[in-house]
Amino acid sequence: MKLINDKLNEEIRLRISKIQEIMSSSATEAVLLASNVNIYYSSGRFYRGYVFIPLKGEPVWFVVKPDVFQPEESVVAIRKPELIADELLKRGYSLPASLGLEFDDLSYSNIIRLKNIFPDAEITNASSILKKARMIKTPWEIEQMKIDGIHHANVYRKISQCFRPGMTDLRFQIEIEKELRLEGVLGVSRVAGNLMDINLGSVVSGENADSEGPYEFTMTGEGVDPSLPVGANGSEIKKGTTVMVDMNGLFNGYQTDMTRVWAYGEIPELALKAHDCSIRILHELQELALPGVPVTDLFFKAQELVKEEGLSDYFMGHKNKVSFIGHGVGIELNELPVVTGRSKDLLCRNMTLALEPKFVIPHVGAVGIENTYVVTDSGLQNLTEFPEEILKLG
Amino acid sequence: MKLINDKLNEEIRLRISKIQEIMSSSATEAVLLASNVNIYYSSGRFYRGYVFIPLKGEPVWFVVKPDVFQPEESVVAIRKPELIADELLKRGYSLPASLGLEFDDLSYSNIIRLKNIFPDAEITNASSILKKARMIKTPWEIEQMKIDGIHHANVYRKISQCFRPGMTDLRFQIEIEKELRLEGVLGVSRVAGNLMDINLGSVVSGENADSEGPYEFTMTGEGVDPSLPVGANGSEIKKGTTVMVDMNGLFNGYQTDMTRVWAYGEIPELALKAHDCSIRILHELQELALPGVPVTDLFFKAQELVKEEGLSDYFMGHKNKVSFIGHGVGIELNELPVVTGRSKDLLCRNMTLALEPKFVIPHVGAVGIENTYVVTDSGLQNLTEFPEEILKLG
Repeated sequence: MKLINDKLNEEIRLRISKIQEIMSSSATEAVLLASNVNIYYSSGRFYRGYVFIPLKGEPVWFVVKPDVFQPEESVVAIRKPELIADELLKRGYSLPASLGLEFDDLSYSNIIRLKNIFPDAEITNASSILKKARMIKTPWEIEQMKIDGIHHANVYRKISQCFRPGMTDLRFQIEIEKELRLEGVLGVSRVAGNLMDINLGSVVSGENADSEGPYEFTMTGEGVDPSLPVGANGSEIKKGTTVMVDMNGLFNGYQTDMTRVWAYGEIPELALKAHDCSIRILHELQELALPGVPVTDLFFKAQELVKEEGLSDYFMGHKNKVSFIGHGVGIELNELPVVTGRSKDLLCRNMTLALEPKFVIPHVGAVGIENTYVVTDSGLQNLTEFPEEILKLG
Repeated sequence: MKLINDKLNEEIRLRISKIQEIMSSSATEAVLLASNVNIYYSSGRFYRGYVFIPLKGEPVWFVVKPDVFQPEESVVAIRKPELIADELLKRGYSLPASLGLEFDDLSYSNIIRLKNIFPDAEITNASSILKKARMIKTPWEIEQMKIDGIHHANVYRKISQCFRPGMTDLRFQIEIEKELRLEGVLGVSRVAGNLMDINLGSVVSGENADSEGPYEFTMTGEGVDPSLPVGANGSEIKKGTTVMVDMNGLFNGYQTDMTRVWAYGEIPELALKAHDCSIRILHELQELALPGVPVTDLFFKAQELVKEEGLSDYFMGHKNKVSFIGHGVGIELNELPVVTGRSKDLLCRNMTLALEPKFVIPHVGAVGIENTYVVTDSGLQNLTEFPEEILKLG
C-alpha cells in the first residue's frame, strides 16, 4: 500500500500548496498536523501519525500505524512523535521558529506533547489555517461531493416506501438508515469540535421539531435517551404532522447535507406556505450567491424574505431558534463558513454550502428543505437534486 | 425538565463523592468539567455547560444549553464560561488555587479558555481523576450495563438468521446493525481520545481479520474506504472462513462489548483449537480475577495458556498483533484499566472489563470471543451471556 497513490498525488500537492499559501499570511513557519480529519485532508487517508508542512518545500508524512506503507522519501515510519525533530534535521529541514498545531482539533495533552518536541518554537493555531484551506474545495473534492449528492438522492427516493402507518419516528429512521447503508453510507458522523454528538442523522416529527437540545443542530429533536439528546424521540408519527428527514450523506471521505419533508395526512396552509418560502429563499440565494458576496448577505436576504411573508415567528425554530441558516460542509458536517448575521467571510468559487432555511409550525412539525451547493461563477450549483416540495406518506 | 431527577439524585451524589475522594489524593482543590462524557457522568445527562466540583462541599452545574432545566440552587444558567468565577464567588465559593481541567478530553482551545477564567490557579489534569472514578462502577451503572448485556445477547441470537450465502461481510453487517437498532442501540460509538474512529462495530471475515489499521482495535479489518479504515471490507464471505462479529452494545448511556464467531462451512482443526483456547482463557480468568489481583496477572495468565497450547503465533493477531487482551468499558468503549503486561492497576470490586483473547488463523479468519464482566468478590460475573462456541452460518 502506498500512502499517496499516483491518482491522489497531484491532488494532495494542490492541497498542500493551499495550506502553504494560507500559512504565508499567518507568520507560521511550519504546521504539524495530527488530527484524523487533517491527516486525511493532507494525505488522502486516515493513519495514525503526523504531517509536517513547512512554509516552503516538501512536506513529510510521519506514520506511526499502520506500518505497511510503501516507503518513499517523504514518508517516514516513526515510533513516537519525539523522534520527529531528529528526523527533520536528518533530512535537511531546519526546526521552525513558529509552529502551527491544531488547537481546536487536538486535546490539550496532545498539543503539550507536540509542543515539547519543539521547545524553542512559538506555537500558533493550525486549526484555523486548515479550516480556511478546507473551506474552499478542490475540483476533486467537489467531484466526491457530487457523488455523495447522487447517492444521497437515491436514498431519499426510497423514503416514502419506508413508511408504514402507526410507525414511530425512530422506527422510520431505522428503515432509512438501512437504505443509507445499502447505498454505501459509511456509518459515521463527523462533527468538528468534539462537543456535538449525533448518530446517522435526525428524523423529527410533530412537537419534537421544537425541542431544545444541547447541540447547535437545526430542529434538534430530543432523542430517546438522555445520553443522546438529539433526533427521533420514539413517538408515533401522527396524521396532520410533518416528518423532517435530515440524514447523513457521508459516502466517501466527503459528505452532502440534505433535508426533505414528508407529510402524513393533511397539514395546515401555514405549513405549506412556510415550506414554499423555504424553497423560494433557496432559489433566490442560488442567484445571489456569487463569488465576492458577503456571507451575511445570504443570511439577511433570507430573513427579509421571511419577514415579507410574515413568517418570522417560525423561522429557524419557534420556541427555540438557532442563529444560522447554513454552513460549510465537506470532510466534517460543520465546516466554514457559517451562514449567520455575524460572518466575516466572503463567498468564494468552490466553497460548498449547506443552506437550510427551515421553519417550525407549532403542533405540526418542521418544514423547509436543505441542499448542499457549490459556489460557481454563476451562483450556486445544487449537489442534492431531488424534488423540493412536501412529499406524501401513506 | 430537572437537571437531576429524584431517582438519579442519590446516584449523582455518590459519583461526586467518588470524584472528590480521588481529588483529595491529587492536590486538586476543584475540577471544572466540560466534556460530553464527564458532564454526563456527573449530571446524568448530556448538556452544554460545565460542572464545578470543589474538594469539599456542593458542586455547581452551569448550564449553557438547553436553558430549560428547572432552576435549583445548584443549577445555574450561564451564557458563557467567563461568568463562572463571579457566579462562584456570589455563592460563597472561594476560587481554587489548583484547578483540574480535562487535558485528555478537551481541545487545547477549550482548556486555554477555561484556564483564563482562573488566571491564578495552577491547572492539573482532571481527565485522569475522572478516568479513575469511572473505572469503578456504581451499582446503578452496573445495572445499566446488565441491561445492555441482555439487549446485546438478544441481537446476537438473531445473527445466524441475518446471513444469506453469497453475502459480503458489509451486507451481513448492515443486517446486524438493523437488528441492533431495532433492539434499541442508540447508534453512536463513543471512543475516548478522539483519534480512533468506528461506525457501529466490526464484522471481519477471512484474510481481512489480519489487516493492520491505524487504530488500537483487535482484528481491525481494513474497511471499505480510506476515510474509515476499519471493519468489513466488502468481500464475499467464503466457505471455510470465519466471521467475527464485534458490534456496538450502547443501549443507554452505558455499553457492553461482546464478540462471537460464526463459521461458514468447515473450518480447520487449528481454528477450532484456538477458539476453545479463548473460551478456556476466559473461564480461567473468571476465577483468577479477584479484587486485589494485579491486572497484569490476567494478561500473563492468558499468554501462558496460549503458550501451553502452542498458539502464540496466532494470539491477538498473526501478522499484526495488539499488546492488550482487554479493557475497561462503560460510558466509553475504552476505559481503564487496560489489560496489558504493563498495567499498574489492581483489580477492584465493581470494575467492568471487556476481555477478548482472540486469534487470527491465516486464510481462515479470526476466532475467540469477548465478554464484558464485572469484578465481584468471587471473581468475574459475565454480563454478556450467550453461547460461546463457534456458531454456524448457512
